[in-house]
Amino acid sequence: MMVTTMLLRSKMAAEKVATGVTPNKGLKLMERYFSTQVLKSPLSLMSLDMPDIWAPPSPTDYCSPSSSPCNFSGQQTAAVIDGKSIAEEIRSAIAIEVSRMRRCIGKVPGLAVILVGQRRDSQTYVRNKINACEEVGIKSLFSALPEDCTEDTVVRELLRYNNDPSIHGVLVQLPLPKHLDEEKILNMVKLEKDVDGFHPVNIGNLAMRGREPLFVSCTPKGCIELLIRSGVEIMGKHAVVIGRSNIVGLPTSLLLQRHHATVTILHAFSKSPELTTQEADIVVTAAGVPNLVRGDWLKPGAVVIDVGTCPIEDPSSEFGYRLVGDVCYEEAARVASAITPVPGGVGPMTIAMLLANTLDAAQRVGDFN
Amino acid sequence: MMVTTMLLRSKMAAEKVATGVTPNKGLKLMERYFSTQVLKSPLSLMSLDMPDIWAPPSPTDYCSPSSSPCNFSGQQTAAVIDGKSIAEEIRSAIAIEVSRMRRCIGKVPGLAVILVGQRRDSQTYVRNKINACEEVGIKSLFSALPEDCTEDTVVRELLRYNNDPSIHGVLVQLPLPKHLDEEKILNMVKLEKDVDGFHPVNIGNLAMRGREPLFVSCTPKGCIELLIRSGVEIMGKHAVVIGRSNIVGLPTSLLLQRHHATVTILHAFSKSPELTTQEADIVVTAAGVPNLVRGDWLKPGAVVIDVGTCPIEDPSSEFGYRLVGDVCYEEAARVASAITPVPGGVGPMTIAMLLANTLDAAQRVGDFN
Repeated sequence: MMVTTMLLRSKMAAEKVATGVTPNKGLKLMERYFSTQVLKSPLSLMSLDMPDIWAPPSPTDYCSPSSSPCNFSGQQTAAVIDGKSIAEEIRSAIAIEVSRMRRCIGKVPGLAVILVGQRRDSQTYVRNKINACEEVGIKSLFSALPEDCTEDTVVRELLRYNNDPSIHGVLVQLPLPKHLDEEKILNMVKLEKDVDGFHPVNIGNLAMRGREPLFVSCTPKGCIELLIRSGVEIMGKHAVVIGRSNIVGLPTSLLLQRHHATVTILHAFSKSPELTTQEADIVVTAAGVPNLVRGDWLKPGAVVIDVGTCPIEDPSSEFGYRLVGDVCYEEAARVASAITPVPGGVGPMTIAMLLANTLDAAQRVGDFN
Repeated sequence: MMVTTMLLRSKMAAEKVATGVTPNKGLKLMERYFSTQVLKSPLSLMSLDMPDIWAPPSPTDYCSPSSSPCNFSGQQTAAVIDGKSIAEEIRSAIAIEVSRMRRCIGKVPGLAVILVGQRRDSQTYVRNKINACEEVGIKSLFSALPEDCTEDTVVRELLRYNNDPSIHGVLVQLPLPKHLDEEKILNMVKLEKDVDGFHPVNIGNLAMRGREPLFVSCTPKGCIELLIRSGVEIMGKHAVVIGRSNIVGLPTSLLLQRHHATVTILHAFSKSPELTTQEADIVVTAAGVPNLVRGDWLKPGAVVIDVGTCPIEDPSSEFGYRLVGDVCYEEAARVASAITPVPGGVGPMTIAMLLANTLDAAQRVGDFN
């Protein structure tokens, strides 16, 4: 029956390509097909594997001063949530704590990073993480594996770090090359060293009432920290999370719910996302679509956390491009009560949270408080 | 720091009792306290352990014909989603499949149920499950343990079933007596036999994109089946889930999202839940509060799945009580396009899904399709 299901899915995919049938119609067909079958577990379990492709914004959607139909009139009313300086504060505090740990028990936290392949962006992220470790006194180990390395090689490296008592956090930089089984590899990260919080047990325990995950993913944790440290009340507020990735959208929605927000998750299949967003007290957006969220998507006074980071061409910039978030900042800053900039908002918090998780892992193992 | 956190929580709880401080204010204090500390993992991780106590409905809130301020005028417009007959269909199909399995490989699926204590409702549920197994030809084993048994006794029993190759599904009837560690016990159910789908790995994999849980909890799966088999389109629709329990609300919201609905989760801390519910195309309610959802909470044409099952006194009934759901049925049936009755809606589906999960587990192990 599983085989039938998979065949049906492939058939649907093929049909979609051939005939332009919308996934919507395909799903209806699938649901009708299933409803006539004997019911077994996988049958009603729709897969999330349809890609979340958001409608691409038209060129006029970009709200840059040059090409913009945007409303740039009025003054900025929103307070800027300065992720860079908040992250710096946290890093200083971590540095003090690491040094206290070294003094008291003669040990420091250790982080191991595994990078497979030569992706420029991944290399930059990894370099930033390692530099940040160094700055606060956390030991770091780094394995750079070739693009075409085998799964066994990655696993061997991972197990070595899993078993190394001087290493308290192990992370595998994503995305992995396509020939490697990301699920299998991430599931092998020792739960007590899963400082990225991507292990399904950590996600499951984050979702469940009365459970405590050992780690919460760094970006979602950074978003919540920004809210808390900016004095934003979360409990009872309506929070809208745009995007449902395993790395950001999903854990952020779970974390907001843990803080007793009423949470709505929007994704590429949501109808009229602007109407839902207009109801939100807090908007966290992680769709990866530049300027998806316009000023008129927001309720006056909303708090906006923009996780998106997309490079777009900008000949006037030093490097020929600049980073933009999911939010049309200039518009949003005239409607929101507080907003994170891109860059300088969520980005710096992610690494600070990674350091915090690593410190926490080390203190847990060393029973050091 | 963990200790401090926990002390703070206890202190807050104590203060709340002593001074009547609302959790809202307590949380604000907590957030302010945390924001001044070095950041470590558990700090910003609010616990979900505040009980979801919904405002109790006043006596006039009950919409029974005798005591009601309800609007009983107008005709029922909603189609009744007949869970009883849909569940019967599924059970017949399962019986045929079990018999085919016995014929082909000489084996049948096996389910083990562990019940601790003497709760009447639990005894009834367990009896129903065992009877349902018998009806479709699934082997069942049953352990009734005394209320005061030790954790070791439960674990020993559980491990025995985990290791018994004739048993494909193991379930521990909840709730457990307070002296037993529910989390520890549920985590020991072998993943491949977790037919209740309560293991955090199964919940985590249900939540994550690109992952497949081995099992989905029975009641949520039953709700989705009712929608699919009633021809309700889920993708792109706005679904509101009322209640966020590990057993129903949480996995239902994850499952609806897997089917590409836009999902909002309401809980006892949500403000104006009626306004959010009014926007919903699909309402799944599992708050356990009789008649919480009134007719005017619903958008005309909404589909309503009522998971609530509360006994309320009714001298006119044979047993002195009757079961009511979370929804004021008489009102809702005049607004909704389709609705599940209580009893006879979701209830029968839960057991049907348990049988389906058990069959599925057995076929997976036996590599029988």
